Amino acid sequence: MKSERYEKGAGRLKDMGCCSPIGEMLKEIAPDMEKYICEFAFGDIHSRPGLGKKERELVIMATIATLGHAPLELKSHINMALNIGWTRAEVLEVFMQQAVYAGFPTSINAIFVAKEVFAERDGKGEEN
Amino acid sequence: MKSERYEKGAGRLKDMGCCSPIGEMLKEIAPDMEKYICEFAFGDIHSRPGLGKKERELVIMATIATLGHAPLELKSHINMALNIGWTRAEVLEVFMQQAVYAGFPTSINAIFVAKEVFAERDGKGEEN
Amino acid sequence: MKSERYEKGAGRLKDMGCCSPIGEMLKEIAPDMEKYICEFAFGDIHSRPGLGKKERELVIMATIATLGHAPLELKSHINMALNIGWTRAEVLEVFMQQAVYAGFPTSINAIFVAKEVFAERDGKGEEN
Amino acid sequence: MKSERYEKGAGRLKDMGCCSPIGEMLKEIAPDMEKYICEFAFGDIHSRPGLGKKERELVIMATIATLGHAPLELKSHINMALNIGWTRAEVLEVFMQQAVYAGFPTSINAIFVAKEVFAERDGKGEEN
Amino acid sequence: MKSERYEKGAGRLKDMGCCSPIGEMLKEIAPDMEKYICEFAFGDIHSRPGLGKKERELVIMATIATLGHAPLELKSHINMALNIGWTRAEVLEVFMQQAVYAGFPTSINAIFVAKEVFAERDGKGEEN
Amino acid sequence: MKSERYEKGAGRLKDMGCCSPIGEMLKEIAPDMEKYICEFAFGDIHSRPGLGKKERELVIMATIATLGHAPLELKSHINMALNIGWTRAEVLEVFMQQAVYAGFPTSINAIFVAKEVFAERDGKGEEN
Repeated sequence: MKSERYEKGAGRLKDMGCCSPIGEMLKEIAPDMEKYICEFAFGDIHSRPGLGKKERELVIMATIATLGHAPLELKSHINMALNIGWTRAEVLEVFMQQAVYAGFPTSINAIFVAKEVFAERDGKGEEN
Repeated sequence: MKSERYEKGAGRLKDMGCCSPIGEMLKEIAPDMEKYICEFAFGDIHSRPGLGKKERELVIMATIATLGHAPLELKSHINMALNIGWTRAEVLEVFMQQAVYAGFPTSINAIFVAKEVFAERDGKGEEN
Repeated sequence: MKSERYEKGAGRLKDMGCCSPIGEMLKEIAPDMEKYICEFAFGDIHSRPGLGKKERELVIMATIATLGHAPLELKSHINMALNIGWTRAEVLEVFMQQAVYAGFPTSINAIFVAKEVFAERDGKGEEN
Repeated sequence: MKSERYEKGAGRLKDMGCCSPIGEMLKEIAPDMEKYICEFAFGDIHSRPGLGKKERELVIMATIATLGHAPLELKSHINMALNIGWTRAEVLEVFMQQAVYAGFPTSINAIFVAKEVFAERDGKGEEN
Repeated sequence: MKSERYEKGAGRLKDMGCCSPIGEMLKEIAPDMEKYICEFAFGDIHSRPGLGKKERELVIMATIATLGHAPLELKSHINMALNIGWTRAEVLEVFMQQAVYAGFPTSINAIFVAKEVFAERDGKGEEN
Repeated sequence: MKSERYEKGAGRLKDMGCCSPIGEMLKEIAPDMEKYICEFAFGDIHSRPGLGKKERELVIMATIATLGHAPLELKSHINMALNIGWTRAEVLEVFMQQAVYAGFPTSINAIFVAKEVFAERDGKGEEN
């Protein structure tokens, strides 16, 4: 049986239209990690009242883009950001703003990840 | 004579109540860097219409906190974020959210930088 | 009232003789972070059965040393590593091994952090 | 003729069942790098008496996983870690422990690298 | 109409025989980034008189290789470095030197990126 | 007795007027690290014929500045760079060039480290 924290986090992900393959990929090899993502990352932290969903996704996109080596995770959050109301232009603006602070190569790579996400969404007929 | 781009960036910094010593420190040793900060970082990029001031400061705080090694620059942006309307609680929420994506040590260090900024602002009688 | 997970994590930290000021520093400004450290970092993850305490501290010291910008957190884990049975020579060996993979500057900085920890422990009359 | 240090390092790699293509790839373009890997990385450092092979591989896996951008090198060390007695579950536990200190995306990516290694080993009929 | 700064930067890139697809890729999705690369990165900074083209490309290759996650950008600069007079052996020497400061995995990955660039140049009949 | 490689590296450091306290600090706690610095970092790598001293110091300054968390090591190399003929203006130019690739905060921090080095050298009556 899933914990209340798990259900809270899973609900949060569903609210943001999460369609990332990461959860399923983890279930095959390290199922407890999938559990911690729902319980801790989304149930405990992302669901905190102090900042809204949209603000949190700005912070998360900026953080993962700065790491620079996690395109799969970045795609997942770009998709959720678009699902909850950020526009494509705003997502690109986030990564352009980062050129100043993380450097152009890191910024440009995030823009290219966004480009892939946009193409995938076009393929699925998403308007945003 | 200062360029139009410089004036635009300097105005942007003034609008956000910038009180960082970085600009003056750079003028003593590498004045062109201070010029590029005004012209490019704030005149060209930060002043773009696609995202508001407040959203940009969220992105910037998250980016610098993830780098982990630039507390002086982080303090400057925490101060500006507070000046333009983010609350102390919201700033802390940004860094707590990052624990999931950049790890606890990086998140905690950013929280401690915020703590220093808050103490300095208390010393100056700032309400926020 | 503290959760079961909190008590488990707090107990784990006590077992390792944790004497870091980080928990108290967080309680003053972001008390929920202190809670997550006990609940998630030590209650959920560090207490998992799959690896022993000593192995986990090796992994954690290597991870924080590689980040390079978190000496306070590194000191905390060097202290716990020594408390649970690693020798000073072994701790230094960890950081020397990292010179190959993270580069000499990062390795040397971790060695200097260890040096400070050893001096503090000498001051307290610790034998190890 | 190979130096004594080279032979020592090459022997160390052989003892750990190294099957990485990196050495051969380097011989084609930068053969001195292959020499330094054997002489310095494995002959001088990895062969030091202060920590055992297994402990060193824990440290190395944690270090490379934290860098986040070197999956080929990480695969090489996951393979060696398994060859010298760490179990698959223990390797995954290392990367799960790192979620707390390096963040979830970096931890998850290392888990996915491990997944690839396990699949390759299954294909070769390895039991561990 | 392009600004004077843009023309200066575009000329600089042309002088170094830039053949990277990055500019065109950006024009499709974030054309202003392509503009900032020409105006700021190459028009303002790279064209400064204080260091020569060749020295700047050494610094840039070392910087991008240290980031570790930007092979497309690194390829672009390896190509330009070769076009303006650095030899293949010298480029490899840069990355070998970095093994000491950024660690072997980061150094080796840059060497493998160089290997790809050399193969592409061989395919085009470039002598250097 | 010191090895031939050690003497070669120590000689190289002396040729560049090395005055860093790092070697002595390491001798007190991890003397083998000081040995590896002379033998491997300077005896094997820095002394290779493929690039000159001055070019190597450009690469090293850029690499350490990008790491962002090793000011002591950066100071050591800025001093050596100045000793072997780079001017203060050229050193600053290196770090300004990096703003584009590693971001402004990392670039600015390196400039501030250089500022400290210049002040120390002024105090010793160095002309460059």
